[in-house]
Amino acid sequence: MSELRRDPVMGRWVIIAPERGLRPDQGQMAPSVRQSAPCVFCGGQESRDPTEIAAVRASGSARNTPGWQVRVLPNKYPVLRIEGTLVREGIGMFDMMSGVGAHEVIVETPDHGKELADLSDGQIVDVLKTYRERMQDLGGDDRFKYVLIFKNQGYQAGATMSHAHSQLIATPVTPKRVKEELQGSQRYYDFKRRCVFCDIIKQETRLTRERVVFENDIFVVVTPFAARVPFETWILPKQHSCDFVSIDHVQMSGMAQALKTILLKLRHALDDPPFNFLIHTAPFRRPRAGYWSTIQYDYHWHMEIIPRLTRPAGFEEGSGFYINPVTPEEAAELLAKASLTPPVVEPAIAA
Amino acid sequence: MSELRRDPVMGRWVIIAPERGLRPDQGQMAPSVRQSAPCVFCGGQESRDPTEIAAVRASGSARNTPGWQVRVLPNKYPVLRIEGTLVREGIGMFDMMSGVGAHEVIVETPDHGKELADLSDGQIVDVLKTYRERMQDLGGDDRFKYVLIFKNQGYQAGATMSHAHSQLIATPVTPKRVKEELQGSQRYYDFKRRCVFCDIIKQETRLTRERVVFENDIFVVVTPFAARVPFETWILPKQHSCDFVSIDHVQMSGMAQALKTILLKLRHALDDPPFNFLIHTAPFRRPRAGYWSTIQYDYHWHMEIIPRLTRPAGFEEGSGFYINPVTPEEAAELLAKASLTPPVVEPAIAA
Repeated sequence: MSELRRDPVMGRWVIIAPERGLRPDQGQMAPSVRQSAPCVFCGGQESRDPTEIAAVRASGSARNTPGWQVRVLPNKYPVLRIEGTLVREGIGMFDMMSGVGAHEVIVETPDHGKELADLSDGQIVDVLKTYRERMQDLGGDDRFKYVLIFKNQGYQAGATMSHAHSQLIATPVTPKRVKEELQGSQRYYDFKRRCVFCDIIKQETRLTRERVVFENDIFVVVTPFAARVPFETWILPKQHSCDFVSIDHVQMSGMAQALKTILLKLRHALDDPPFNFLIHTAPFRRPRAGYWSTIQYDYHWHMEIIPRLTRPAGFEEGSGFYINPVTPEEAAELLAKASLTPPVVEPAIAA
Repeated sequence: MSELRRDPVMGRWVIIAPERGLRPDQGQMAPSVRQSAPCVFCGGQESRDPTEIAAVRASGSARNTPGWQVRVLPNKYPVLRIEGTLVREGIGMFDMMSGVGAHEVIVETPDHGKELADLSDGQIVDVLKTYRERMQDLGGDDRFKYVLIFKNQGYQAGATMSHAHSQLIATPVTPKRVKEELQGSQRYYDFKRRCVFCDIIKQETRLTRERVVFENDIFVVVTPFAARVPFETWILPKQHSCDFVSIDHVQMSGMAQALKTILLKLRHALDDPPFNFLIHTAPFRRPRAGYWSTIQYDYHWHMEIIPRLTRPAGFEEGSGFYINPVTPEEAAELLAKASLTPPVVEPAIAA
């Protein structure tokens, strides 16, 4: 059973999850995570894992049978478990909590041979719809403060399965990095009475445009001014909202187009790099507005895409400073120009 | 020329260092960083890099000649440069600073075939003495707020050279992670009127001992209660001090023994894992005590050792939550038992 422990100096929570040691590749530095089809996530293999939590499927098709487009399963090696009550405990000067939460896998397609970027806009909308639905559902559980939706693609990004999937983890505390963003956004709002993300969107799209990668009516994709890693990009909704779950069908279409575009551009510009993405949104149970909260006005949900081209090193770990060898302006220029289709390879002329 | 940029949401500084793109392995995921001897860090090769900043060397031996035990050189691909004044600038809503700082390499031995763990206690004292001297020297430069001393050993820990070396980076801002530790320590002190690290040392050595890996009169090596990664360990001086530079010769001997011991144990228990270590100490220019500061009493310098056995993934990056599949108690038990000498391999009997 895993547990949450709090660092007494930093106040940072850590999940101690000994059961995760059982994962297929744990501790190994294997070069690839490619499994051959059919894997347990493949269409037609539903009986190998009949624990379907939710699915987007053809009307009339039954749970745990083929006919689905997106399928949600519990993670086989969960870092937190859905069962149990949330217990807080002191161990001398130290603090811990029972490892209660949720850890789910969102299988993005029944097709083993496709990445998320290969899906149609409509299929990506189904994935986004599933994210929204799972977030809404888990938000109803009083024990959880936050749901982080994320994707690990490629070995260096932490993936252990090659079949296209994303994950979510629901946690009984708001994650530190989200808290810092919330605090930073509120500080900016207190000073300016404007949302910092709205200001970023304005400056990037109207003043300079040198960090804009892609834009449609509803979303803008930029490389952030202080990008942590080469080719980091953010997908920002142009219309202010603190809640990802407020996204409607039209917005999901716009997001699907933006997401597919940036994923294809990354693939073609950088030779299919490993990457993570994640959605940052306001925590469930915080009042949206009132005497103590301006979160409805000061915070702005978004997606961050983080390619894994460099190795983290001691300086980054020890300082919290990132060293980025590629300027966000160069990265944006390269990505803006990058093709949506694979480069054409001239056939070699046989002698 | 590199620059520092501030993330407008998080307040986090990032170093944008395009020149680093020139490093030999940049962007590559090479499996090894092993160079063959003699390399530019080897004894006898001093003329290949005659830019010696400092050295521990035999009396009478000249700068940039053989006869040294520890040698300090400027990093060939510095993330920050020593030349220039510190300029702060606004770019619309964004903030930046010129990339002024220092980036040095501390070559730990002239011998290409030795790791830090293979050096004698006396040689490790020379390395620690060099750390102290460089920190004192750079502390005299008004432009710098902090010097982070760290080591990357092994490819997965970010090393690009295999010859034993550590590094230091002097920065014009106090790194975020150090700031957070300082704030956390001060918060604890405000509440308890005791140093949080002194309390950790007491609880670990007197109450439970289940996370103690090694102890001598002067230092204790523990796995932290909320370890971020498998086999993370901290080397804590038993005597309270906020400043690494206050370390005297006797303390350096105790630290050398503790450091050599834990590095050998990690090597033998975990098959020579890649790791980072780093020293956290109080920033230079903060008053040690007074109306606004209790840093002399609330903060405690220490070394953190972070093996790189797992890959970082999207959840960690997005949440700031770490998932650690090995309990600190198991890790401490394994390390406490681990041998200081290599396992004896029975010779195979030839048929």
